Amino acid sequence: MIEQREHFQKELAKLNDLILKMGGMVEKSIFNSVEALKKSDAKMADQVIKLDDGIDKLELEIDELCLELLATQQPMAIDLRFITTGMRIASDIERIGDLAVDIALRAFELSKQPLLKPLEDIPKMAELAEKMVHRALDSFVKRDAAMARGLWADEEKADGYRDLIHDELVGIMTKDPSTISRALPLILIARHLERIADHTTNIGEDVVYMVEGKVIKHAPK
Amino acid sequence: MIEQREHFQKELAKLNDLILKMGGMVEKSIFNSVEALKKSDAKMADQVIKLDDGIDKLELEIDELCLELLATQQPMAIDLRFITTGMRIASDIERIGDLAVDIALRAFELSKQPLLKPLEDIPKMAELAEKMVHRALDSFVKRDAAMARGLWADEEKADGYRDLIHDELVGIMTKDPSTISRALPLILIARHLERIADHTTNIGEDVVYMVEGKVIKHAPK
Repeated sequence: MIEQREHFQKELAKLNDLILKMGGMVEKSIFNSVEALKKSDAKMADQVIKLDDGIDKLELEIDELCLELLATQQPMAIDLRFITTGMRIASDIERIGDLAVDIALRAFELSKQPLLKPLEDIPKMAELAEKMVHRALDSFVKRDAAMARGLWADEEKADGYRDLIHDELVGIMTKDPSTISRALPLILIARHLERIADHTTNIGEDVVYMVEGKVIKHAPK
Repeated sequence: MIEQREHFQKELAKLNDLILKMGGMVEKSIFNSVEALKKSDAKMADQVIKLDDGIDKLELEIDELCLELLATQQPMAIDLRFITTGMRIASDIERIGDLAVDIALRAFELSKQPLLKPLEDIPKMAELAEKMVHRALDSFVKRDAAMARGLWADEEKADGYRDLIHDELVGIMTKDPSTISRALPLILIARHLERIADHTTNIGEDVVYMVEGKVIKHAPK
């Protein structure tokens, strides 16, 4: 019985490790996709796209591990919620990876023309998004609801960046419509980053539910 | 034992019903959000936003039911996958509901100005998206992998619509930048619809996995 429990704990630790590994990979993808944008570096953008396969594979590995744990260990209460939350989180991280790919695709497209302007807010917003991914996954492995709740304020900041970037670029396009093909992808990139932030708050909500058994999803924050 | 099994089958049937109910609600939300857009009807847009609460609540109900089934029934094999897939699908439907709200928000914003042009492709694209939601959920409750696979071709159609709408509107904005504030939200709406289509293929991938135990996620289609 004790042996079985030890085995179970080891498997849960493995789940932690896989989630953190996957998180590290998408943080890097976000960073590199925006670096590719800043430097008009088509090669770097291409690398982000290629590395997404590895992220996808990790999601499948996590799914398999969770299904196996559910089938063989009949976990209860917090352990059951930890495992089902792990599956959900893996799916959120995978989608964050897809959004980094979306940014890289725009960076690739933009690398063929001169940048519209030196980028300021997009790199800051990307840094915020990376920080949020890190915090969200940290709150999961530490089962720390307070840490997860810290994400709400960051999400508001991300929304602010998105609106700021949107308004500035619409102003530029309106003044000079020849800039549209270079401005529109930047508007979309700000939206991709905002969706990354949004996924991290989904993770945060799941963590609070896991720890406190309290549903805060869809409740006013 | 037989009684227990019967109870379990009843609970699974309840899961089916809840998923279909939730699906019916988001189909209606998509339809109404685009109707609000076509008719510049701010009230109808507002209704879509208000009805989203009910969709969110259904997701929570489905989650609770699935967790209870996992904890009390120790399901195996196909039943285990059916339940974990149900949780995933509820989360996809909830996000589709959020995207209908995003469309409604744009419709609300646009209702204050005259429509840029009579809408043709956006309503067609919305109809396709509704059809895809219906097909995806139908394939889940019927456990029909072939039906789920039918979604891939529809997703390509949705991508085609998105690109068509994008290019047409960029052309209009470029010719006359005074149209930007009315064209840009339409570009975003086409993207929201494309993401709805994308969520339905996520559901389709999960259904194929559930039925065949074969991972097709992230594999070339």
